[in-house]
Amino acid sequence: MNKNLYSIRMRAAQGGPHECGGKHISGAERIVKEKEIMDTIRQLIYRAQQHERGYPDYINLNIEMLNTENIREVTSLPIYTIKTTNYFEGREMAKKILELLGINRTIIEQSFHHLLQGPAPNGANMRGAILMDIKTGQRLEPDLSRGIRVSRIDYKPEAARELAHQLSRYGLNNNHVREALCLATKVSLFPAIVGELCWSDDPSYTAGYVASSKFGYLRFNHLKEKGSARGGRIFFVDPACSELEKTIYRLEQEPYLITKLGKVNGEITYDDFKQIAHSALKGASK
Amino acid sequence: MNKNLYSIRMRAAQGGPHECGGKHISGAERIVKEKEIMDTIRQLIYRAQQHERGYPDYINLNIEMLNTENIREVTSLPIYTIKTTNYFEGREMAKKILELLGINRTIIEQSFHHLLQGPAPNGANMRGAILMDIKTGQRLEPDLSRGIRVSRIDYKPEAARELAHQLSRYGLNNNHVREALCLATKVSLFPAIVGELCWSDDPSYTAGYVASSKFGYLRFNHLKEKGSARGGRIFFVDPACSELEKTIYRLEQEPYLITKLGKVNGEITYDDFKQIAHSALKGASK
Repeated sequence: MNKNLYSIRMRAAQGGPHECGGKHISGAERIVKEKEIMDTIRQLIYRAQQHERGYPDYINLNIEMLNTENIREVTSLPIYTIKTTNYFEGREMAKKILELLGINRTIIEQSFHHLLQGPAPNGANMRGAILMDIKTGQRLEPDLSRGIRVSRIDYKPEAARELAHQLSRYGLNNNHVREALCLATKVSLFPAIVGELCWSDDPSYTAGYVASSKFGYLRFNHLKEKGSARGGRIFFVDPACSELEKTIYRLEQEPYLITKLGKVNGEITYDDFKQIAHSALKGASK
Repeated sequence: MNKNLYSIRMRAAQGGPHECGGKHISGAERIVKEKEIMDTIRQLIYRAQQHERGYPDYINLNIEMLNTENIREVTSLPIYTIKTTNYFEGREMAKKILELLGINRTIIEQSFHHLLQGPAPNGANMRGAILMDIKTGQRLEPDLSRGIRVSRIDYKPEAARELAHQLSRYGLNNNHVREALCLATKVSLFPAIVGELCWSDDPSYTAGYVASSKFGYLRFNHLKEKGSARGGRIFFVDPACSELEKTIYRLEQEPYLITKLGKVNGEITYDDFKQIAHSALKGASK
C-alpha cells in the first residue's frame, strides 16, 4: 500500500556544517512517495533559505528508502488549547498537568529549570530532546549536547490536508503546531514515556504544550516570556517500563505515518480540562 | 564574478548509510550557481539511481555556499593516452613514468601492491586516496579506511562543454575521464604531491592514469585486469615539501574550478611520450 516511501530529512546551518560549529538555522523532514522526492527537496531547501534565523550556507539532505512493512500508521493526538493570559499561568497549569501524569513536583521543577537555563553542557539549547527519569530526575540521553532526535515522521497527504483545514479554523495552521503534533503523537505511543513538555527556542513563539497518550496534545499560548530564545523538549521516562536503548532507537529510526486525525478542539478553560482529565483517568483506571 | 557558487555533493549507498555499513554505490559533486542547484540535485539523484553497482536506498546531499573569493580558477592538465595492448604493458609504463617523477622503484612496487591487495585495513578498497611518503613508503592518511577525499572541484560550464566536445573526438567523453581529470588537476597543483596513480574499482573499466604537474594526465587503456574490482588512488607525497595537515585540509576543502582546458591529445606511443618527457624535464631543470 505504502509502496516506495522515502524519508527526506533536511538540516541547514550558517557558518559551516552543524558538526563544524555552524549555527543551526532550520530542520524539517517528510515521508513521501518516490515521485514527490524532487518537489519535497525543493520545498525543504526553500524553507531553509527563508528561515527567520538567517540564511544558511550549509544544507544537508538525507533521502532514505523506507522498508514499508515497518511503517506504523497511527492517529494523531487530540488537540486542545488551554486558555491562559500569561506565561506564569501557563507554566503553573503545565506543571499541574504533569503532576496528573504521575510526575513528582520536584522532578517537574527540575525539568523547567533545564529548559530555562539551557540544557546542553555549555548552557546552550539542544536540538534534540532531554530524556528525564521521573523517579530520580536523572537525564538519560547518551549525549547531553545532542539529545534525542525523534525522526522519520510525517502525515499522509490526505491527513495533512485535513489537519491544515481543521487547524486554520482556530488560527493554528502553522509549521510549529503541525510538526510538534506529529512528533508528540509518535512519542506518546511509547509506554515508557509518560509525557512530554515543550516550548520553542524561537524568540517570537511563546506557545508550548504538554503531550501524553492520556490527555492528548494540550497547548498553551503562553508558556514562555516573549523574546526569550530559551526552549527545548523533555520526555519524561518511567524507567520501569522499557529498555532505554531500544526506545531511543525506535524514537529516532522507526517510521511513523499519521493516517488519521484525532479531534482538533478550540480553546477550553483549565476547569474544562479537569473534567476531561477526570474522565480520562477514570477510564484508564477501570 | 563567481557570485553565489554552491558545492553540491552526493553520495549514495545500499543497505543503509555508509557510516552504518551500507555499500557505496555512487558519489559525485558539482560546483554550480544558485539557480542551477535544483537541476543539479535532480541529475545527481538520477545518477545515483542508475548506477550499475545497484539501486541505492540511501542518498545524502550536501549543499554548501562557497566563499567565492576562495575559489581558485585553474587550467586542466593536458591529456595523453599512451598506447598499450595489455595491462602488463600498461603497468610497466606507468611504473617507468613514476620513476621519471623521482619515485624509487621499491616505493612504486609497494604502491601497486596496495591497490592490488585492497588498501583498507580489512582488505577492502578505499573510497578516498592513499597518501604515500616517497622516501619511506609510509602511508600518511590519518584514517587508513577512509583515505583522503579530494572535494570541491568542478568545471565551469563553458569549460565542461568544450571538454566534452574535445574528449568525444577520441571516444573518451565519459564520467570516469571527466571527473578524474578534474580531480587530478587539483591534486597536481600541490607542490607536495609529485604524482598520482589511479585506476577504477569498477570491474568493467580497465583504464587508469598517472598524473602530475610535470607530464600532465597520462592515460592507459589497460592498467588492470578486466573483471577485477580492485582499484584506488595513490598520491605520492614528498615529505620535504609541505605541512601534511594543511595539504590534506586544502585537498578536501578548498574549492577549485577549471575555467580553461589543457590540450586534449589522442593516442601516442611510449617513445613519443619519452620525447615529451625529455623536453618537460629539460624545461624544468633550466
